[in-house]
Amino acid sequence: MNPGRCAACRYLRRRCPPDCIFSPYFPPNNPQRFASIHRIYGASNVAKLLQQLPSHLRTQAADSLYLEAQYRIEDPVYGCVGLISLLQQQIHDVERQLAMTQAEIAFRARHPQAVESNLLNNVGNPSFSNQASPWFM
Amino acid sequence: MNPGRCAACRYLRRRCPPDCIFSPYFPPNNPQRFASIHRIYGASNVAKLLQQLPSHLRTQAADSLYLEAQYRIEDPVYGCVGLISLLQQQIHDVERQLAMTQAEIAFRARHPQAVESNLLNNVGNPSFSNQASPWFM
Repeated sequence: MNPGRCAACRYLRRRCPPDCIFSPYFPPNNPQRFASIHRIYGASNVAKLLQQLPSHLRTQAADSLYLEAQYRIEDPVYGCVGLISLLQQQIHDVERQLAMTQAEIAFRARHPQAVESNLLNNVGNPSFSNQASPWFM
Repeated sequence: MNPGRCAACRYLRRRCPPDCIFSPYFPPNNPQRFASIHRIYGASNVAKLLQQLPSHLRTQAADSLYLEAQYRIEDPVYGCVGLISLLQQQIHDVERQLAMTQAEIAFRARHPQAVESNLLNNVGNPSFSNQASPWFM
């Protein structure tokens, strides 16, 4: 056994050549990293993808492939597309909340007397702007 | 040539069996869909992934694999992890904007006289709450 073999060559039970495409991105102390990527993409597809990139971008590519593989192993149906949908929904929710809060400022500016009695009740309540039907609508 | 072959079997130049794992998700009228997936994952990895899922979830899995493959072809370094970072940054920005706007409401409620002179200048300006350094800080 050659202790200098990278995690990919160990996994594939092969000799690790000096110019191994996997070696810089799959160190032997993290066998899980290559195992996950191999399970989803296969060794030859990962090698092809890394080879087509300039060497200074390969670490980022190996990292992002590993992340995507992990998402796909955790959620075989949606993978990281599931996370993308979730984040898009979060953006939509926060933008809606922001629009309501900005509308509230505009209303208060135009009707300072009308809102004065509500201020003491509402200010300091963190869910004030999260309500589906705010007091001023 | 068999016109009934699915896009995967056409691409792989093979007979399309009646129980083809690809056929329901890769119709012959969309050859690009299988070509993208094959380029990133390889046919056998996609087949394995679909086979391990119950049939009612395979359409969603094929769709999400296709989307991820498209992201990876467009951005070979970051794939859809690049989009995830972008969305997380967007959420951070909108949450920051929301916190500033909520702080503004609280300030106005506690200092109604102090802000009165600013209202006419600021209300109706859509970028009012987007400023990096708002007037009250």
